[in-house]
Amino acid sequence: MEMKTSATTEMKLKVKNTGLDAGEKAVVILNEKDVEKLGIFSMNRVIVKKGKYDITCIVNSSKRFVREGEIVLYRESAEELRARPGDTILVRPRPELESKRFIHEKIAGKELTCRKIRAIVDDLLERNLNDLELAALITTLQIRGMTEKEVYYFTKAMIDTSKKITFGGKVLDKHSIGGVPGDKTTLLVVPIVAAAGLKIPKTSSRSITSPAGTADRMEVLTNVEFSADDIKKIVRKTNACIVWGGALDLAPADDLFIEIEHPLSMDPLLIPSVLAKKKVMGSNTVVIDIPLGSHTKVNCMRDARELAKKFITVGKRIDIKLKVLVTYGEQPIGHSIGPNAEARDVLETFAYHKSPDLIDKAASVAGVLLEMAGKRNGKALALNIFNSGKAEKKLREIIEAQGGDRRIKPEDISLGPKHITFKAKKSGFVTSINNTMLVDACKTAGAPKEKGACIELYKKLGDSVRINEPLFTLYSNKTRKLNEALKFINHSSAFEISKRKEVPARRMLLTVFS
Amino acid sequence: MEMKTSATTEMKLKVKNTGLDAGEKAVVILNEKDVEKLGIFSMNRVIVKKGKYDITCIVNSSKRFVREGEIVLYRESAEELRARPGDTILVRPRPELESKRFIHEKIAGKELTCRKIRAIVDDLLERNLNDLELAALITTLQIRGMTEKEVYYFTKAMIDTSKKITFGGKVLDKHSIGGVPGDKTTLLVVPIVAAAGLKIPKTSSRSITSPAGTADRMEVLTNVEFSADDIKKIVRKTNACIVWGGALDLAPADDLFIEIEHPLSMDPLLIPSVLAKKKVMGSNTVVIDIPLGSHTKVNCMRDARELAKKFITVGKRIDIKLKVLVTYGEQPIGHSIGPNAEARDVLETFAYHKSPDLIDKAASVAGVLLEMAGKRNGKALALNIFNSGKAEKKLREIIEAQGGDRRIKPEDISLGPKHITFKAKKSGFVTSINNTMLVDACKTAGAPKEKGACIELYKKLGDSVRINEPLFTLYSNKTRKLNEALKFINHSSAFEISKRKEVPARRMLLTVFS
Repeated sequence: MEMKTSATTEMKLKVKNTGLDAGEKAVVILNEKDVEKLGIFSMNRVIVKKGKYDITCIVNSSKRFVREGEIVLYRESAEELRARPGDTILVRPRPELESKRFIHEKIAGKELTCRKIRAIVDDLLERNLNDLELAALITTLQIRGMTEKEVYYFTKAMIDTSKKITFGGKVLDKHSIGGVPGDKTTLLVVPIVAAAGLKIPKTSSRSITSPAGTADRMEVLTNVEFSADDIKKIVRKTNACIVWGGALDLAPADDLFIEIEHPLSMDPLLIPSVLAKKKVMGSNTVVIDIPLGSHTKVNCMRDARELAKKFITVGKRIDIKLKVLVTYGEQPIGHSIGPNAEARDVLETFAYHKSPDLIDKAASVAGVLLEMAGKRNGKALALNIFNSGKAEKKLREIIEAQGGDRRIKPEDISLGPKHITFKAKKSGFVTSINNTMLVDACKTAGAPKEKGACIELYKKLGDSVRINEPLFTLYSNKTRKLNEALKFINHSSAFEISKRKEVPARRMLLTVFS
Repeated sequence: MEMKTSATTEMKLKVKNTGLDAGEKAVVILNEKDVEKLGIFSMNRVIVKKGKYDITCIVNSSKRFVREGEIVLYRESAEELRARPGDTILVRPRPELESKRFIHEKIAGKELTCRKIRAIVDDLLERNLNDLELAALITTLQIRGMTEKEVYYFTKAMIDTSKKITFGGKVLDKHSIGGVPGDKTTLLVVPIVAAAGLKIPKTSSRSITSPAGTADRMEVLTNVEFSADDIKKIVRKTNACIVWGGALDLAPADDLFIEIEHPLSMDPLLIPSVLAKKKVMGSNTVVIDIPLGSHTKVNCMRDARELAKKFITVGKRIDIKLKVLVTYGEQPIGHSIGPNAEARDVLETFAYHKSPDLIDKAASVAGVLLEMAGKRNGKALALNIFNSGKAEKKLREIIEAQGGDRRIKPEDISLGPKHITFKAKKSGFVTSINNTMLVDACKTAGAPKEKGACIELYKKLGDSVRINEPLFTLYSNKTRKLNEALKFINHSSAFEISKRKEVPARRMLLTVFS
């Protein structure tokens, strides 16, 4: 049963200004009795009016901080209303939002139209929907799922309400939906593709829940925070960039949804989020990577296929040529987890092919991109570019264009001074690596904030080990954090060693959907 | 896909106290960069520690109000931690809540066990779950519904975490799930039942979304705010009371859920909410009224039956003898909407049987209660008590016991001085009354806060009218509000008049489920 609420009272209140700064949200504080008199609740919106000026604000209710008949305006609101302490202003409940009704329609199981989804996104951007309503929306989308049409409408609304960056011509990009630790593939894919003469302006996120995001890794090697104009210059010079996307204010609706999704540990808007961010960055040829593993976001091929299908259909509708790759995600990529170890692993892999699985994955992803851009034998071409040293040269060009030192060597990157090495307790083969344990330990050691907090792996799935051989080392800047991190590791289940040999996938690329 | 988050960083921050008062919630304000460094989000919980003291707080994130390295503690938290400005304290993210995981299980479609529901209710009461998580829970319950077991577990958890009031012996009660305007039945049922020598301590709510709740109506006649001890005295004296339940802090979990449900316009916890409140008030013999109508909460008999079944099953499990009545809810009850008009209507109905539908409904509800308490021919007995004047005498006793004037007369109650009367534009029969229009107009006129804002009805469904005969009058204290309210009324659709005659139900009681 849905309850109807509509309140219509209006009140006169006396302004009590404070120096409080509510950030981006316009908030007013009223005494709880006044909130009740208005017939509304904390978190509801009111229209606050003084003379010819009026603004919409969120109501916070307080027992003692504000007396009855008084209102606290935050600084920005007071300025906007030209209101000073002692002034009398009018406060009335804002009429019910149309978009709130649309959320209730989705709760009731109805499909949302383009217009309704746009209304929701507009009210999101204008901060008209409060956090409760947004949490209700996200939960509903999580439970009910979305039709392909709805996914498209959300994507379109996010794009249409964003500014755009344009590069012109074929613009390539890749995106991993994440979930596999140590996935530094982008740091190889981007230089390979750019070295082939193609444009690939890559924006990445910092880590939110993992020990390192691509932006965190790249930041070990060079700067990653740039304006849109700077990015254009870097791309003009090198065909590529690897920068943090967070400062560009692209697809702002996506950022606002994420503010609700993350604390709720939900991501029903994954596809609109990824595709809108690509589209407004001008990308038109995109590879999506779905790591498949026991502990990644997608655990079975059927789910991967369904997700891939939606990605491709919606991609088509917004004029993005798109392929979806399913890749092996059972263990960390390469020999490292955490910003510094991963950046070093990348340089070492360029220098002497340290991590073959990383090379294979990067060449596979780059290969598909090259073929989508018209090249033949993509993966062979990608490997060729990698082996010839052109990719490394390109990475160093990008590092320099972003203000870093192109001559950076692996040994310039230091890992945390406090460390402990775990050794095999018996001989045999590695049959299981517990990603979650390693990730939790690495984060507890300080990653991603402390870039030296990381893990180096010496053995991977299928490798043979002798008793007392080192398996991995955990690094931290501080003994206290190292000890804290150790609690997350159960030695024998972090690396399972067994007599029987289990060989992992020999090729990182499992399936291509297009 | 569910994302896993676990953050483990710890930070040292410098206290910057303020005189801010966060009400019941412990809140700290951190600079947004520190929030990011902690790997958490605004609204997440942190554990704040100083020496041997630690507390859990909600994080608010601010751009400018707090500098990096600083923390603002609200007054209560500062006191609890013995923290003073300039002190250094430790802040770390609180580990993920078990109950949050249980909410995700329900999102995924699993049935929740008794233990899990209790954990959710405990974390609700300890303010561990934030508003986003609670909104996600409420939305999930709204979409997925609950099994009978889950309804029982929520009810039980609300009861077990509440203090109880006991009266002893047979304790009767009634509850309407609401939705029909002008439903003042309680003001007749309680005195009828009490006059028959039975105990009926009635707690009621004030209006939240309607022009008047039972507590608002009773408040026109006498006081309604009492402590548990006062209530016991009143009931000892008169066998009954009609008081506001909001001040008694009974079933506090219910109140906290309602704080989230109301702004979201959802009420998935209707049954636990009603039954827990009855149980902790000591009631053991209860009638639930489901008004059935085109605009009430339940619109078809099938839904009413399903709801009734759950009420009865769960009632049985918590030892409440319970019957569910479905009543006619197509038009307002009696001839009034809004506190003063309704109180007056009640007194006039006692005095000269003004509103026969009100008498019929009250006698039906009271009749079922009397039979549940062992009396025969309940409705006839109820009518007998009403007609004999004993019920009116009892109401006046209750009014006096609650501190009011037992001699109060209908004409002592004044309606708003500004008013407008709507007259029939043609002759015929009333075939439809638009409840929503009348309710919105009445609220806009000032109800329930301004008790004189109300509507008097002169005609009801099936009545014949001649052109220019008055249909209803809208009252308000102020011309401005009256004009505002008029906008809600479309004259010809508020009261539809037609040549064909439609006779409404002759008996208010449609069905009894037991």
